[in-house]
Amino acid sequence: MTESTSREAWSLHPRLLADSIPIIEHDGILYRLLNDRRFIWVLVVPMHDGAEQIHRLPAALRERTRRGMDAVCDTLDELHGPDRINVAAIGNLVPQLHVHCVARFTDDPAWPGVVWGAGEREPAEPLERLARARQLAAGLASRLGRHS
Amino acid sequence: MTESTSREAWSLHPRLLADSIPIIEHDGILYRLLNDRRFIWVLVVPMHDGAEQIHRLPAALRERTRRGMDAVCDTLDELHGPDRINVAAIGNLVPQLHVHCVARFTDDPAWPGVVWGAGEREPAEPLERLARARQLAAGLASRLGRHS
Repeated sequence: MTESTSREAWSLHPRLLADSIPIIEHDGILYRLLNDRRFIWVLVVPMHDGAEQIHRLPAALRERTRRGMDAVCDTLDELHGPDRINVAAIGNLVPQLHVHCVARFTDDPAWPGVVWGAGEREPAEPLERLARARQLAAGLASRLGRHS
Repeated sequence: MTESTSREAWSLHPRLLADSIPIIEHDGILYRLLNDRRFIWVLVVPMHDGAEQIHRLPAALRERTRRGMDAVCDTLDELHGPDRINVAAIGNLVPQLHVHCVARFTDDPAWPGVVWGAGEREPAEPLERLARARQLAAGLASRLGRHS
């Protein structure tokens, strides 16, 4: 099965679809913003049928996914200057591979703990999340274009 | 500063030193086993002065670190057949870069939550942790040798 065939069959997990909004799609990878106003939280999702864990991705896609993760982190650094970026592939609840890149600040509501399982999500206002997603899309498009 | 000079100055963060035992060192990267009998939990630590976040590592070291993470995950899969591997760079408490690779099972004490902040650590018996570290060292050495 070629990668493009595989991508046609692919669809985003319903839980990820419900919990996040689109930022951008680039080179077979979806970038989405988690809908939680407490954090700047990006998901990197390779559109590859059956992908669950990074170390089992085909080598080329694994590298592309990681380039995407780096681009997200660089963009978060540039736009928001966080104290730390937490990067993680967990997937205990949603098996479809999605990598979390979360800008963390020493005064955010979960610091110094992790964001997973920390309190209740607070949906952002539509205009607020759209503005944030657009800003991230511009930063990401610029970085990804440069490296692809 | 050359990388070897940098490595001479490098030392493991005291908290990581206290919380884990050595598995193996390979190609400028330390592999350590967290001392917690509840989980099979490996730390990947590039011995690079000032390293804090993966996306800011020099490109060659970043790639080497990720190859090491993949080797750890493959070894965990082979030796322990986990239901999932959680891979994360967090560092909110210990800034020195250390990547967590944790074999997760649906019947482990934190499932489906994350391991960070989950209950109290339970130190393993010295012989038990030594046996586990040696087994991981053999698996890792074999994989890392093949790819370096």
